Amino acid sequence: MSFARVAVIGLGLLGGSVARAVHAHLPDAMTTGFDADPAVRERAREIGLANFVPETVAEAVTGADLVVLCVPVGAMATAGAAILPHLAPGVIVTDVGSSKASVAKALAEVLPGISVIPAHPVAGTEQSGPDAGFAALFRNRWCIVTPPAGADEAEVARVMAFWEALGARVETMDAEHHDRVLAVTSHLPHLIAYTIVGTASDLEEVTQSEVIKYSAGGFRDFTRIAASDPTMWRDVFLSNREAVLEMLQRFSEDLTELQKAIRKGDGAMLFDTFTRTRAIRRSIIEMGQDDARPDFGRSHT
Amino acid sequence: MSFARVAVIGLGLLGGSVARAVHAHLPDAMTTGFDADPAVRERAREIGLANFVPETVAEAVTGADLVVLCVPVGAMATAGAAILPHLAPGVIVTDVGSSKASVAKALAEVLPGISVIPAHPVAGTEQSGPDAGFAALFRNRWCIVTPPAGADEAEVARVMAFWEALGARVETMDAEHHDRVLAVTSHLPHLIAYTIVGTASDLEEVTQSEVIKYSAGGFRDFTRIAASDPTMWRDVFLSNREAVLEMLQRFSEDLTELQKAIRKGDGAMLFDTFTRTRAIRRSIIEMGQDDARPDFGRSHT
Ligand SMILES: NC(=O)c1ccc[n+]([C@@H]2O[C@H](COP(=O)([O-])OP(=O)(O)OC[C@H]3O[C@@H](n4cnc5c(N)ncnc54)[C@H](OP(=O)(O)O)[C@@H]3O)[C@@H](O)[C@H]2O)c1
Ligand SMILES: NC(=O)c1ccc[n+]([C@@H]2O[C@H](COP(=O)([O-])OP(=O)(O)OC[C@H]3O[C@@H](n4cnc5c(N)ncnc54)[C@H](OP(=O)(O)O)[C@@H]3O)[C@@H](O)[C@H]2O)c1
Repeated sequence: MSFARVAVIGLGLLGGSVARAVHAHLPDAMTTGFDADPAVRERAREIGLANFVPETVAEAVTGADLVVLCVPVGAMATAGAAILPHLAPGVIVTDVGSSKASVAKALAEVLPGISVIPAHPVAGTEQSGPDAGFAALFRNRWCIVTPPAGADEAEVARVMAFWEALGARVETMDAEHHDRVLAVTSHLPHLIAYTIVGTASDLEEVTQSEVIKYSAGGFRDFTRIAASDPTMWRDVFLSNREAVLEMLQRFSEDLTELQKAIRKGDGAMLFDTFTRTRAIRRSIIEMGQDDARPDFGRSHT
Repeated sequence: MSFARVAVIGLGLLGGSVARAVHAHLPDAMTTGFDADPAVRERAREIGLANFVPETVAEAVTGADLVVLCVPVGAMATAGAAILPHLAPGVIVTDVGSSKASVAKALAEVLPGISVIPAHPVAGTEQSGPDAGFAALFRNRWCIVTPPAGADEAEVARVMAFWEALGARVETMDAEHHDRVLAVTSHLPHLIAYTIVGTASDLEEVTQSEVIKYSAGGFRDFTRIAASDPTMWRDVFLSNREAVLEMLQRFSEDLTELQKAIRKGDGAMLFDTFTRTRAIRRSIIEMGQDDARPDFGRSHT
């Protein structure tokens, strides 16, 4: 059974994409949208992001049979508490937060008695705000649903079907495992990218303008990731602290090994490491999880 | 004065792109090509990579007024020694190697009395081999020419004009400074990417298939860089050891700071760091050094 009225709370990249994807793929569903920022609500109305963008969260969620929380992870509890008094009987609340154990815990606390089925679509760009979203964001990307213990199976199935309708492939996982997987495939890469861009900005012997001019040698890829929203990423690292620190520890050990090999001039070790890492790219492309064109299909004009 | 006969030694991504760009932008120049690998020579003939792809390096360089060495950095000395007996009077030898001080030294040793003007076009993709190149690779990218002390100014100007003709913007720099700049904008990013892809491959609690499936959260960007040619990159790290180790040291210190902030839950420090790194992306795009579209213009189908 599909949803008749979908309320999207938080109208940035993710919320905007969810609303657009609902319009594109579930034309019978009515959408409402709310954002804490009046300017975002105004812009959302201008571009018709949702069918109805009222001034209060109460109006946005009243009568909704699905509420999708698309706010930063650290704002989930506030957003959840704000909707509670206005929820219709039988409603399902879900979210798109990038870490899951802490969000599940926070939402369970502020939404007692409500069906909460958290999820995380593994899809995004470095942009944010109401103009950043697009309906195809979830197409062929994975969405991980993390049903809490004792969740109603029919409700889990409805949330999964919702994401499938939006174009995603859907998998379920427990929240703790999700957080370890994403620590390595998303959180650590972002931490590393933020770090290296910071390091490059602080050098004295190499100017900022040189870093920018000669960025096409690899650095520019990291700057894209390091341009992601600071609030979102602060919240991710604070909420998935343990898994991130553990993966970071492994990474640091591996980096030390490579550092030693460079210092000793151990070409064979370097060559072996660089050969081993090649295969994974092929698998990612075969699985349809990246653009197969060289250089992501970047333009050369 | 433009060149009449350009010999390209090494017919992989860079050599193939140089030959194609010469055909596209300097139609009056004749190109010859040579590669140590007979299969690459054969393929180069099939696809018409150069006007003439003989079986010996002697035939390839005889009569050339410009020789462009496009072999891995560690093979520059061998390639230089092989061409020496066959070089025409007045020839200029240049190269495209990713590190410059060691290459300049190696070529000066094996090519006594020959004008060697090293260069490094800061442009590439993760692909290699004779089919990987394309004429537009250098368009709007920077090419750094590193004239040795005492180089003939007119010869330096000819090499600079050559790269400009191929579509590049050209800058000169001393080789040591080049190596420090590229250590941060290219070599360190590659080292980090190779490391994180290796770390992700070795985890036990997260499977390889999970890493691949959920790679769209950031990790996939690193796999592209870590799919680059192992020989090329082994040689880069061995030949630019000191600058790479120094930048790596700075990076590790910065990473330790972020690690502490995460451990302590210092959200303000994380937020500040993540805000500071945002601006550089804008500058790179304004300078035309990356695709302005979100997510590099990756396809969403
Ligand atoms: N970006 C990605 O690539 C990506 C991918 C997968 C999942 N996610 C997750 O998606 C969520 C949203 O991220 P995003 O990229 O869409 O961020 P975004 O573009 O910054 O949008 C978030 C919006 O939520 C608003 N907001 C904050 N607190 C609120 C509240 N209590 N009630 C209503 N609105 C509130 C924000 O307004 P203010 O700006 O005024 O605070 C902002 O307009 C995060 O949990 C993130 O972890 C992101
Ligand atoms: N890839 C990039 O993004 C990039 C960017 C800027 C500069 N560069 C520099 O460009 C150079 C070439 O890199 P590439 O990416 O073009 O590598 P590539 O695609 O692997 O091509 C290099 C070619 O040179 C051949 N070769 C090796 N030793 C030789 C010799 N002594 N004589 C003749 N041919 C020889 C190789 O044959 P075998 O395979 O049989 O050894 C191979 O076909 C390197 O110095 C690299 O640092 C690369």
